[in-house]
This record gives sequence, structure tokens and C-alpha cells, in this order.
Amino acid sequence: MTETLKIGIAGLGTVGAGVVKLLAAHDRLLGLRGGRRLELVAVSARSRARKRDIDLSGVRWEKDALALADAPDIDVVVELIGGSGGVAKRLVERALRAGKHVVTANKALLALHGADLAALAEKRGSILAFEAAVAGGIPIIKALREGLVGNRVSRLYGILNGTCNYILTTMRETGRDFDVVLAEAQAAGYAEADPSFDVDGIDAAHKLAVLTGTAFGTKVDFAGVHVEGIRRVTSMDIEFAQELGYRIKLLGLARETSYGIEQRVHPCMVPLETPIAHIEGVFNAVAIEGDHVGKTMFQGRGAGQGPTASAVVADIVDVARGRNMPAFVVPAARLADKKASPMDRHVGAYYIRLMVQDQPGVIAAVSKALAAERISLESMLQRGRSQSGEVPVVLTTHETQEARMQRALAKISRLKAVAEAPCLIRIEAF
Amino acid sequence: MTETLKIGIAGLGTVGAGVVKLLAAHDRLLGLRGGRRLELVAVSARSRARKRDIDLSGVRWEKDALALADAPDIDVVVELIGGSGGVAKRLVERALRAGKHVVTANKALLALHGADLAALAEKRGSILAFEAAVAGGIPIIKALREGLVGNRVSRLYGILNGTCNYILTTMRETGRDFDVVLAEAQAAGYAEADPSFDVDGIDAAHKLAVLTGTAFGTKVDFAGVHVEGIRRVTSMDIEFAQELGYRIKLLGLARETSYGIEQRVHPCMVPLETPIAHIEGVFNAVAIEGDHVGKTMFQGRGAGQGPTASAVVADIVDVARGRNMPAFVVPAARLADKKASPMDRHVGAYYIRLMVQDQPGVIAAVSKALAAERISLESMLQRGRSQSGEVPVVLTTHETQEARMQRALAKISRLKAVAEAPCLIRIEAF
Repeated sequence: MTETLKIGIAGLGTVGAGVVKLLAAHDRLLGLRGGRRLELVAVSARSRARKRDIDLSGVRWEKDALALADAPDIDVVVELIGGSGGVAKRLVERALRAGKHVVTANKALLALHGADLAALAEKRGSILAFEAAVAGGIPIIKALREGLVGNRVSRLYGILNGTCNYILTTMRETGRDFDVVLAEAQAAGYAEADPSFDVDGIDAAHKLAVLTGTAFGTKVDFAGVHVEGIRRVTSMDIEFAQELGYRIKLLGLARETSYGIEQRVHPCMVPLETPIAHIEGVFNAVAIEGDHVGKTMFQGRGAGQGPTASAVVADIVDVARGRNMPAFVVPAARLADKKASPMDRHVGAYYIRLMVQDQPGVIAAVSKALAAERISLESMLQRGRSQSGEVPVVLTTHETQEARMQRALAKISRLKAVAEAPCLIRIEAF
Repeated sequence: MTETLKIGIAGLGTVGAGVVKLLAAHDRLLGLRGGRRLELVAVSARSRARKRDIDLSGVRWEKDALALADAPDIDVVVELIGGSGGVAKRLVERALRAGKHVVTANKALLALHGADLAALAEKRGSILAFEAAVAGGIPIIKALREGLVGNRVSRLYGILNGTCNYILTTMRETGRDFDVVLAEAQAAGYAEADPSFDVDGIDAAHKLAVLTGTAFGTKVDFAGVHVEGIRRVTSMDIEFAQELGYRIKLLGLARETSYGIEQRVHPCMVPLETPIAHIEGVFNAVAIEGDHVGKTMFQGRGAGQGPTASAVVADIVDVARGRNMPAFVVPAARLADKKASPMDRHVGAYYIRLMVQDQPGVIAAVSKALAAERISLESMLQRGRSQSGEVPVVLTTHETQEARMQRALAKISRLKAVAEAPCLIRIEAF
């Protein structure tokens, strides 16, 4: 283990350039900490001309990323191209087949093909590491795979998308609406030109699927995640949340129920007195509840050059140290193939906001629809008269089943006095 | 690596019994996750008769703990006796000399002899693991050694003692004084009969010294820690803190300054808007600031049977997986022998509470003493008249040097109108 570890990096975007910088900045330190020198041997990226502010002298440039998988002088391929298919997938598969170790930050790839890739890595005795795929700089994969290995995880949840958390935080702080804040976030570089991956919850769902597989020893099941984004959260809901003692967060949550594995990504009402309510801006946090350790939470920057590079390099050092274990803790052949608990079976409390015509009998009709499904109200807030004639009515309920709530809401939506589709936000207790 | 890992446990108090329970409860799961079976072969404890609610059938009982170090059928010795010397130290040394791996929860031992033990372990190629020594169930040692290995740590700080945090939280919530709350905590089992290790900050200092060594690659230096406990914090100070936008926490803090390594344990004023201000009760939290990852924080239960056992078992699984690396990340011979930055050189802001005779000229005299040391005030609060004639005066200062503050306070203490020793609490900015 005193030989140099030779590294090939595919993808030199923000993260790839960050890894090159970190390896250079801490060359001596990492050699000392990793027990052997880490040497960047080759890189590959779409455009060689792009300005990146990194020194690649002495580093081989491969036009074709796949060449990194074949290069006999490379021990570990670092895949930072992204995307669930295409070159990224071909590169990872080819590298693993060639018996090389793979470090990747690619949550989409793992969310869709995690179990297969884990099996492939195991077959060749290679390491497949992906700390950077979830929650940026927070070493949460290591915590789950190793630090909390003595626990059966009962539940996990987290703020997994910094863009959404930044938007929700800014909406609350400024009172502005989603569209305005999103546009500002795009201008400031906190949101992509096409923001749908983030604001529609897909990115968070990818990460949740990877976390769930790691924590519960199940095959990564992205298709089993119930996903809703934050587009429908209004500044009015954020104000009501505050009034009711909550903060609205886009959470990813997973637990095992008697119906299977429940995985959900959607806006949540989180009680103000819980720690996760205070994770603001671009920060991420992941809470793990284990049967022996109890409640734990890990927080830090969920994206960005430095934090993500920190996670990638931690994986590279693990490779240098020869830390080989199954990608999802238990051998791939032993990963459970549990079915997804259907969302209809979800049990929880709800926040419902209706816009109603301010006329007699509306509340009675709404109450009747809820009562018919045996949903009991916890509180009701009605705002004073409005000039337009439409006023918000906010209901919070005690625990009920999602199917009942959806049936009641369908009935309520059909009431003439209800002006637009009701806004539903699930209330989470921790 | 498919052979059973054979374990000997010394010490069957709360933590030892917890480890026995956890190993039994998750026997199959741990075998799957650790890649080999974990088998408890032998135990040793002071009293064999004590009721422990654990099943030790088929487990050998050793009268002498040291026999575990000699037993040819034991691969890893788990030291849960405690104490910086005595049997614990002899056992760990003997086990390492015999080429066995050692897992320990003993912060006192590591704080005083960490560097020597690390060297001993390395010489024999043994693993010395101590996740349970710091912050209970929070996998913070692993985070520092591995998850954040790509960073140069600029600063770390944390709530490292659950007893103190419980007392401070309860004082704030109930408005009661230290002595009353301590007595209650003792009755409830949250504080020891002799509470001095906890409330005088020694336990936190042991843990800080271990964290510092791990984070900065320096020889563990307990003697270099400046230690103050929480006995002098009054409910009046807690109220003033709230009024000024702070919460009082006993923190351990470490950073590298131009004078050496600064390590401090003392009560701090922490701004209410920082996450660590909201870590309450028996919970612990450790914040790590790295040059690439930025700010991270890890929280969870800092003590108790389940959380500590979780940490011990994580180390045992690491041993099962053959994860061998130097105890403090870099080889023992390369650990830096940096000197402690003297407390006099500390630079920070201060909260000072005086009890003064309510008479003309006092404030002028106090202000003069501060001005003479070029300390500038940030705020001053004076409470209205009192019947006894003594009123609290609270000052907060801008950043200044500890030596200046101490000189000014010495002068202020000598003022006739100042009734008791001033209360000084350092204000921390994060």
C-alpha cells in the first residue's frame, strides 16, 4: 500500500475542477493521511478549451472518457460527468468491469442503477464509492455505512436539495413569491436555468433513494419514491406556517412500514422547535434515527465546489487505504427487494389551505366532507373579509390516512365556493 | 476475512452491558454488515454477581481483565473500564503489545496517553479505535479521520458534555439556580454523585483534547486545555443572555493560532441564531470547519447505553473489516508537537456581570478601568434600584485580548463598590 494511487477524472465542471484543486492544494497532507501518494494521472472532459483555473500540466488529456476505464496506469476512475445514462453509465460499468475502483458523485445514476452497479463492483472486488452523491460535503454515506452500522435504522429524513431550501428560506425572509425568488436564485447562480430537477423534487428523490438503500439494506428504488416539488408553496402558506408554529421545508423521508418501504419527497410543515426547522439557505441536513443511537443529525453545505470535492476526495482516500466493502453495506445479492409502501397508505397530519368564496355554508360543507372520511380537525384559521370575495381558510388535521384525505379533498375541490385547487402540505412530527 | 472476529470485553457497566446487548440483538445483521461473524468470547468486570440483564451463557468470565490481553482466542479487546491509569491503561497497553486490536471508550486515557498508545498500536500493526470516547453515538471521530480527511480543519467546537448541557438547559427553562438543578439531575441519574468531572469541565476537556489531536494531526495535549466549568453560571446570567440574544453553553473549542494550538473549555455566550444554540438537554453536537467543506455540524446523544454501544460496535465492525490506519490519521511519528497557545493571547468578545453598590461614580470607575486597557464597550445594561443596594451591571465588549480583560477585571474587582468577583463569560462568534 505504499505505491502511489493513480487517479483518472472524467468531467471537469465545478466539482471536477474542485477535486483537481483539492488534490493539488493538499498533495502532501493527503499522502500522509491516505498512507500513499494520490496522483492525478489523466482527465477527460467535453471541452479542453474551457477556462477552469486549474493546473493540468503533466496530466494526460483523454478525448474519450471511456479511455480512462481502459488505461492500465489508472487505479481509480472518478466519474463527475453526471446523468443516469450515457457516457457516465458506460464509463462506470466499463471501469468496474476492468477491475478499477470507481468514485462518483452521480446520484441519478445510483438512484436508477445502484443495485446493479454494486453487484458489478463486488464481482470484480472493486470499490464503488459515492459520498459526494448525497448531501455534498456531509459525510452521511460513511455515517450510515460505518458510523451507525450497529443500528437498525427506523427512519431517516433530510433537507437534500440546497436550491429548494434556499428558495423556501428566501421566500420566508422576504415575503416574496416562488417565481420571483426562483428568478433571483437563477440570477445568483443558486438555481439552474432549467430548475425542474431541483424544484420539482427529482434531485432530492435521487438522493433519498440512495440513502434509503444504504440505510435499510434494500435495492435502491427510485421508482418507489413519491415526489412533489415546491412550485405550489405560496408565501401565504409560509406565513400561515409561521403562525401555526411550523416552517415549510422540502424533505425527503424514508421508513419501513408494514406495507413496505415508504419514500417520500414533498414540502413538509416542520415544528419550529425541531432542529431541522433551523437549517436555512443552501445548507443540507440529514437526520438518522437508529434503534440504539437514537436521534442523530448531520448538517453542512449540500453542494458547491469545495464541499463536493471534499466528499470525492474522502472516497479517494478510502480507496487509497483499501477500504473495500459492499457499496450498500450488505453484499449485493443480499439486498432486499422490498416493495414500495403505497402513498395512499401514508398516515400523518395535514395542513390544507383553501381559497373560498366568503359566503355562508362553505365551512359547513368542507367540514362535512372531512367528517365523512372520519378526519378530525386540529385547528381552523379563517382570514377576515376580502374585497375580491375570496378568503383563505386553513385547516390542520389530526393523523389520518392519505387515501381518506385525498378523497375528502376531491369532494372539497368540487364545491362551488372553493375557488382553486386546495393546497395540501403534510405535517411531520419528529 | 471470513473467520469469526473474537471479542473480549473488559468492564460491564452501563456501556459494557449495552455492547453485549447490541451484539446479541443484531448478531445476524452485524455478521452481514461486517463481512464476518462477531463473537463475544470473554468478559471481565469487577463484580460477577451484579445484576446486569444480559445473557453471558457460553461467554468466558475472566477474573483478571488483563487475561483478555493474553488470551490467544481473542482478536479485539474492548476496554470499557475507564480512568486514565490503573487497569484500563495496563490492559490497553498489554493488548496492543500482544498485537491485539483495541476498541475503547476511555477519553481520560486517550487525553493523557493518546500519542503513546497510538505509537504502540502502530508498532504492532494493531487498530486503536475510540469512536465512543467522544460525543457518544455521534460518529465524529470517523467524520474527522475519514469523512473530512480532505480538509485542513480551521476550527472545531462542540457541546461535549451532556450533563452540563442538561443543567444549563434546565436552568434556563425553569429559572432555577445551579445547585438546585444539579441536585435534581443527580436524583434523576443525569449527573454523578461526584459531579466535578462533568461540571468542572474536565470530561469535556478530555474529549476536546482527543478531537483536537485527531483534527489537527497533533499530539493529544490535555495539559494544554484551558478549563473552566459551569458552577459560576447563575440563572441571572442566563436571563441576561436571553435578553442580549445569546444562549449560554459549555463549549470545547480548538483552533490553530499563530501562538500554537488554542484549546478552551468554558461557558460561552452563543448567538441565538446559530445552530449550536439550539442543542438542548443531554444532546451533544460537534461543529467542524474545514477549508473545503466549510461549516459542518453533527449532533446526537452524547452518552447513555444505546448511543455509546452504537459507537463501540461501529469500531468493532471496522476491526472486522480490517480497517487499519493510524489512530490519529497520520503516523504517530508524524504527529506534530505544537505548543499550546496561552490563554492570555486569546482574542474575543466578553460578557461581564458585576454586582455593584448602587451609588454615583461606580460606572465611571468601571469604564475607566476598561478604557485603560483599550477595551471598548458594545453594550451596558443596568438593572433598576434594589433594596439590598446591590444591582447587577452587565457589560459586553468588542473583541479584545484576554490578558487586557483580566487586568481590567482585577482592577474592577478591587473597587469598593463592586460587591463580589465579576462573572466573565466569553462571547463566541461562528
